[in-house]
Amino acid sequence: MQSTLQGTSIIGAGRGSLTEACGQAVNPATDEPLAPVYQAASADEISRALELAGAAFPAYRALPGARRADFLRAIAVAIEARADVLAERTPLETGLPEARVRGETARTTGQLRMFAGLIESDAWADPRIELADAARQPLPKPDLRSMQVPLGPVAVFCAGNFPLAFSVAGGDTASALAAGCPVVVVAHHSHPGTAEIVGEAVAEAAASCGMPEGVFSLLFGGGRKVGRAVVDSPVIQAVGFTGSRAGGTALMRQAAARPQPIPVYAEMSAVNPVVILPGTVADAAASTALAEAFFGSLTLGCGQFCTNPGLVFLPDDAGDGFLDHLAALVGKATPGVMLNPSIGRAYHDAVEAVAARPGVVVAARAGASPAPNTGAPVVFTVDAAAFAADAALQQEMFGPACLVVRGDRAAIDAAIGTLEGQLTASIHGTEAELANHSDLVARLTGLAGRIVFNGFPTGVEVCASMVHGGPWPAT
Amino acid sequence: MQSTLQGTSIIGAGRGSLTEACGQAVNPATDEPLAPVYQAASADEISRALELAGAAFPAYRALPGARRADFLRAIAVAIEARADVLAERTPLETGLPEARVRGETARTTGQLRMFAGLIESDAWADPRIELADAARQPLPKPDLRSMQVPLGPVAVFCAGNFPLAFSVAGGDTASALAAGCPVVVVAHHSHPGTAEIVGEAVAEAAASCGMPEGVFSLLFGGGRKVGRAVVDSPVIQAVGFTGSRAGGTALMRQAAARPQPIPVYAEMSAVNPVVILPGTVADAAASTALAEAFFGSLTLGCGQFCTNPGLVFLPDDAGDGFLDHLAALVGKATPGVMLNPSIGRAYHDAVEAVAARPGVVVAARAGASPAPNTGAPVVFTVDAAAFAADAALQQEMFGPACLVVRGDRAAIDAAIGTLEGQLTASIHGTEAELANHSDLVARLTGLAGRIVFNGFPTGVEVCASMVHGGPWPAT
Repeated sequence: MQSTLQGTSIIGAGRGSLTEACGQAVNPATDEPLAPVYQAASADEISRALELAGAAFPAYRALPGARRADFLRAIAVAIEARADVLAERTPLETGLPEARVRGETARTTGQLRMFAGLIESDAWADPRIELADAARQPLPKPDLRSMQVPLGPVAVFCAGNFPLAFSVAGGDTASALAAGCPVVVVAHHSHPGTAEIVGEAVAEAAASCGMPEGVFSLLFGGGRKVGRAVVDSPVIQAVGFTGSRAGGTALMRQAAARPQPIPVYAEMSAVNPVVILPGTVADAAASTALAEAFFGSLTLGCGQFCTNPGLVFLPDDAGDGFLDHLAALVGKATPGVMLNPSIGRAYHDAVEAVAARPGVVVAARAGASPAPNTGAPVVFTVDAAAFAADAALQQEMFGPACLVVRGDRAAIDAAIGTLEGQLTASIHGTEAELANHSDLVARLTGLAGRIVFNGFPTGVEVCASMVHGGPWPAT
Repeated sequence: MQSTLQGTSIIGAGRGSLTEACGQAVNPATDEPLAPVYQAASADEISRALELAGAAFPAYRALPGARRADFLRAIAVAIEARADVLAERTPLETGLPEARVRGETARTTGQLRMFAGLIESDAWADPRIELADAARQPLPKPDLRSMQVPLGPVAVFCAGNFPLAFSVAGGDTASALAAGCPVVVVAHHSHPGTAEIVGEAVAEAAASCGMPEGVFSLLFGGGRKVGRAVVDSPVIQAVGFTGSRAGGTALMRQAAARPQPIPVYAEMSAVNPVVILPGTVADAAASTALAEAFFGSLTLGCGQFCTNPGLVFLPDDAGDGFLDHLAALVGKATPGVMLNPSIGRAYHDAVEAVAARPGVVVAARAGASPAPNTGAPVVFTVDAAAFAADAALQQEMFGPACLVVRGDRAAIDAAIGTLEGQLTASIHGTEAELANHSDLVARLTGLAGRIVFNGFPTGVEVCASMVHGGPWPAT
């Protein structure tokens, strides 16, 4: 399938006008702008998308789950019909390799089909039925039934780092549409072409499945202008967001200040600590293997995963082998192209800020690349006491950077005690070590949504037992 | 069992000091103060209760569910041992009749036993286990397991209108303790003696069951001073509140402004609309029966239930019979004693405020009582268009007052469209009417947590299918 990008919003069954240019995608590998110029949704277009979503809700929520499941599967098919178009456009907008884009496309359609399967039965709504008992003493028992119901139209903000799986038809959209909630998507400025292609797929599926108009709209123009108007609308009943802590907390404040406050499901930031116990790095072979696996997780996707392991606790009694091997790998690494110029600048600034903190030492840093928007892997070390005393060292460096915290067990324990909430926490230890560190495991369980044993956090299965969330500020 | 009230907070296994008097309970039927004088928890005592709760959490959450179930059942037994003491003290503090206090005591112990039963198996934690598949292509599938975990220590604010079932060992406390969360309770100023008696029961059960000290503390001194300190503590991870909208929204703002925001589970206000379709008031007998049943719900507990039906939509084609019968019952009603002087004042002020709104007519009002703190039942009427235009008419009048909205079907529909979220919405109709009004039922489903068919909302079963919550601002 071919796709001719129009550069305009999708407002129900119609398209936006060419009235207010709001920017173009930029190829991060070359800094060259990519056609077309995108047009911001006008105030009238935003209002119309919201009105349509509100009007669609009663009819859409009333559909049987099987009808909504058909719609989700039709979206998956329509996205698959555009897989080649996406494999061409998305790498240009994001610097992501084609294989990653094809993999993320498959994950996106897989998510849609997973939610389709979930809603074919009504079990997801947790139905509870307690029949009446007219003879009960001292009072008759009434007939009582409960179930989950959809909240209403949902605003979804696309993620900068997952142009498909956490964007227009990503997990937030799939779950909202599955539950019976119309969706108004706010596109991310960095991959508008990808957003438009996927948005056309959703609109096509909505039309072919006879869904009420307004069950889906896609707005260009950015989170600050378009996003604020959407979140303030009384039609919107919940917000899905994946992005920066500053962006997420701004949305939370805005949503809480509405006359009717609404929930914001925001995934914001994490440094995903990894604790390495001595038994797993007891000799050179083990240290090398673990360092290689860690390096793979650290640099996967140029470090641009929310589950990127940016913090390692390496107690003194675990020796220096792991760190030495890791430093060697990082030192000779090749910088990759980052997702977009703003992420590239933010990574550079975050790395320099950490490098300037008291007690932080550069253990290894890859040579800089002359290409634009590249992110050089770096590994820092810091003493556990200095880490515990400096909240700035808990800031996420979104990219292939990590900080290794050293100290004796007591100092490491104290440093772990200062951590904020996390998406993940990983622990490497032998069977005996893990059994002996149940207190540490319990502490990490309170700290992170997902605990990884002898593995790395960047592989996120999409399945019913996966938790991708965690205590504030992770989500 | 006898109980000698000390007037001091319960700080883990110890008691607070006699350093800062903060008031006495007042018998609302006589305006006379009741001994003893209560003492506010000092800053040190508050800190110690919070520290103990934080320290207790790791051990308490690690206990098997059966141990926590034993604790909950021991609390129920310890409360039952004090049933006669409560039946003597609580009516003095609240004006509630002894039978209601005995009934609420049984409900409270029933809630504790219901949660005890729930946690004997681990099903409440929604465990999900997906085993590894090393042979899966293109990547091996890891072993994944998920379950719900307790958040941490919880602050519970006692309700003014349920001195037992929503207070020291009420539903919030029972669910938090069941899940593995220590609880710090902030007593309500109006029934401190009841709080102390129940607090002693919980402390006794904690000691006899060998629970870690700090799993429970009870603080006197009020929500504004003690409550603010508790909610700001980094130890506290969630808040349970039942009370006014002003109090609940203040807590939400405070919790959201913490460095780590935490959830506030607040039940705040509702007017619990009742829609009456013509078929259920088609003749005088039916109108009389419905008016009598409604009057019972309106005046139950002197109208001091969060599910009190304060708003009736009576379309013109339903005639005047229901309203005439209701007005006759209200006109000859006897005012009851309200829970405390501040609720009595608030009821009086709310009734006068509604009476002064444009278009509001007093249909009937019970004669005032010379006794202090009494609430006279009242029924107002207003035209649907005037109601829709005046948000002040949606304010809760906490007591035996209701507003009957009249108009044709279209005007009634428009008025319903202006409603805020509610705990309950009730609809009275024949089978045929209900079938013909599926749109109305769907709208009410989006508006309220619980829909009552041909019944009244004040009977709240405590069971797995009961929803006691609803869209903002209900909860």
